[in-house]
Amino acid sequence: MSLVVMKFGGTSVGSIERIKNVARIAVKKKEEGHDVVVVSSAMAGETDRLINLLKEISPKYDLREYDQLVSTGETAAIPLVTQAIKELGHDAISFTGFQIGMITDGAHSKARIVKITAERIFKALKEGKICVVAGFQGIFPETGDITTLGRGGSDTTAVAIAAAINADVCEIYTDVDGVYTADPRIVKNAKKLDRISYEEMLELASLGAKVLQSRSVELGMKYNVPILVLSSIEDKPGTLVVKEDKDMEKVIVSGVTADKNQAKITIVGVPDRPGIAAEIFGKLAEANINVDMIIQNVGLDGKTDLSFTVAKTDLLRAIDACEAVKTSIGASKVVSDENIAKVSIVGVGMKSHAGVAAKMFKLLSENNINIQMISTSEIKISCVIDEKFAELAVRVLHEKFVEEGDNVS
Amino acid sequence: MSLVVMKFGGTSVGSIERIKNVARIAVKKKEEGHDVVVVSSAMAGETDRLINLLKEISPKYDLREYDQLVSTGETAAIPLVTQAIKELGHDAISFTGFQIGMITDGAHSKARIVKITAERIFKALKEGKICVVAGFQGIFPETGDITTLGRGGSDTTAVAIAAAINADVCEIYTDVDGVYTADPRIVKNAKKLDRISYEEMLELASLGAKVLQSRSVELGMKYNVPILVLSSIEDKPGTLVVKEDKDMEKVIVSGVTADKNQAKITIVGVPDRPGIAAEIFGKLAEANINVDMIIQNVGLDGKTDLSFTVAKTDLLRAIDACEAVKTSIGASKVVSDENIAKVSIVGVGMKSHAGVAAKMFKLLSENNINIQMISTSEIKISCVIDEKFAELAVRVLHEKFVEEGDNVS
Repeated sequence: MSLVVMKFGGTSVGSIERIKNVARIAVKKKEEGHDVVVVSSAMAGETDRLINLLKEISPKYDLREYDQLVSTGETAAIPLVTQAIKELGHDAISFTGFQIGMITDGAHSKARIVKITAERIFKALKEGKICVVAGFQGIFPETGDITTLGRGGSDTTAVAIAAAINADVCEIYTDVDGVYTADPRIVKNAKKLDRISYEEMLELASLGAKVLQSRSVELGMKYNVPILVLSSIEDKPGTLVVKEDKDMEKVIVSGVTADKNQAKITIVGVPDRPGIAAEIFGKLAEANINVDMIIQNVGLDGKTDLSFTVAKTDLLRAIDACEAVKTSIGASKVVSDENIAKVSIVGVGMKSHAGVAAKMFKLLSENNINIQMISTSEIKISCVIDEKFAELAVRVLHEKFVEEGDNVS
Repeated sequence: MSLVVMKFGGTSVGSIERIKNVARIAVKKKEEGHDVVVVSSAMAGETDRLINLLKEISPKYDLREYDQLVSTGETAAIPLVTQAIKELGHDAISFTGFQIGMITDGAHSKARIVKITAERIFKALKEGKICVVAGFQGIFPETGDITTLGRGGSDTTAVAIAAAINADVCEIYTDVDGVYTADPRIVKNAKKLDRISYEEMLELASLGAKVLQSRSVELGMKYNVPILVLSSIEDKPGTLVVKEDKDMEKVIVSGVTADKNQAKITIVGVPDRPGIAAEIFGKLAEANINVDMIIQNVGLDGKTDLSFTVAKTDLLRAIDACEAVKTSIGASKVVSDENIAKVSIVGVGMKSHAGVAAKMFKLLSENNINIQMISTSEIKISCVIDEKFAELAVRVLHEKFVEEGDNVS
């Protein structure tokens, strides 16, 4: 007997029929003799419906109120899943974030988990119940305010609970049947991976492969929780996310991704003085905006253009923050571009192979794709390009690095 | 400067445009110099949508899960109202039931308020904020489970908060502009009442005049909170619910109502033995089912038929409870009828006028309406009749008692 956390995404609970299917999967696991905790997202479309209502009132909404609002999507889903399980003759109980002591910090709309007391989960499991927990949400104990963990945060909820209750595995059920070398809708030769390391999955997740929220992978890595990504529709093996091993290093590029959810901001005519960058990015940090890539080129006139990328959802607030410091730092203007994409190749094998970056730049250039920004890590290379070339870039990179296996120059 | 609680029903927050209108009404009150607490229902249709999802899974759903589910309707409405107020340049903050310490008992789907700590309301008011509180919901502190107060429970939330924070008035905004002598959709000569006593309002509310939930009126009476019922669409005076005074007694019948939300259960062939009724109604009480009217006629053979009415929503569970005791009490069968209506006349003047009941029965009989059950109080007479005669009965009773003012025989 093992203890299993099973997370179901919005599509998996997108209709009553789908919810009944989730109940069947959970009950099957229970009948195999396991203790089961289900984590559920909101029904597909519900979160967007709620956000759109709020945006109709104000495009620059209050984030505390946003959290109060969108968390209701998950809270509404869990009693439905619970009732569907009960209909199959098993006892079940639903819990919101605050009911299981999902304690977070107070950073609304992107709160971080501080701890999970999970008392009610332990109690309910002991009583033989299947627990159904609302993903995505927590509580900031100082005020009692509801918080949310950012889009896709239910993955994080699931892995964090798995870590807190020392589960044997965290199964992430989704509408795809595993992690692919590229988005199969873009690349028809994309292959499913049987296993992938936390590090690679982390890069893929943070690069816009929407299979797992990156913070869930970080947590899995930190607490060594095996994460199994699999389909809620078909009964197939899926992809297991685990610690890196020797075999994995033979593959140089495990995945190719494109992320269209970023936007670029350029602050033009920034005086080249110490402390300027600190002032700008301090302001953005205060506004709780994550900055991804940053480029600064010093010009001859002692002025420089500073470019960086942020999530599209943060763009308006990021522009506000930049406009607020523009005058005090003596910059001339703030411009933004939403029509960008970040294409990336990821693989632990890169650590031990040189020349991968050069090959990538050459490939893009051969296809007349201009590179606007570059960012690299030990196991990843990312380029910001014009959004309209995103699919083309993914296809040529996948063909060269994954299909041909031609990984080195 | 006074302290005002303003409650808005589902229709009043039924669309973004309506929500903006609610914000304007609240801000106007604030700008007149008052401290304002808004209590909001779920957006119109939302509660039914959620219940229908649950019913699709199981018609006999778990009430704890029902509460977890339906409470999300109100929780989703309050950040929208809050944001709309902020858009008008006033500070506001939304609170769920548990955030304001709305402590209830554990009777899911019809919980009773035990106390309201209201700490966050006092703090927010002191900071000059408009508070926007979710109606209908509370928390059972022993488990941390969410509870709801029964359909229309947002009225009760509003009056209970008004009592807890010692507000000067509790304004109930609705889609009608006050309390009428009858439903204007049925009786075209129905008149709006300027004032009505708590007692009369209580009878009207419990009899199905859907203007106010009866428990809200009980609370208003208990804590002497003036309740003003008025339109959220038109700027009109409304109806004030207050303590009875001399003037009110001059009117014998203040209102005529029909309630179609009840169903009748008859237990056939009950042995005429002491303790039988206690056993049956004890079982119903255990299942938390409120019984309204009860009739028992002893037959010649020592057997009796026992009839009573319950809310239609409780019918299935009530039948179950009756079936469960049927054998042990030796009754022959349980039958039910959903096609009934309870028509009633209400007025404090009845206390000092005789013959009103006889007049009512005669009127119904003259119109060939058969009376199935009768129930009376000091200020009310109710008759259960066939549902199809409900409108006709209301019209003839209103014409005789209210329009003609012919109140005594």
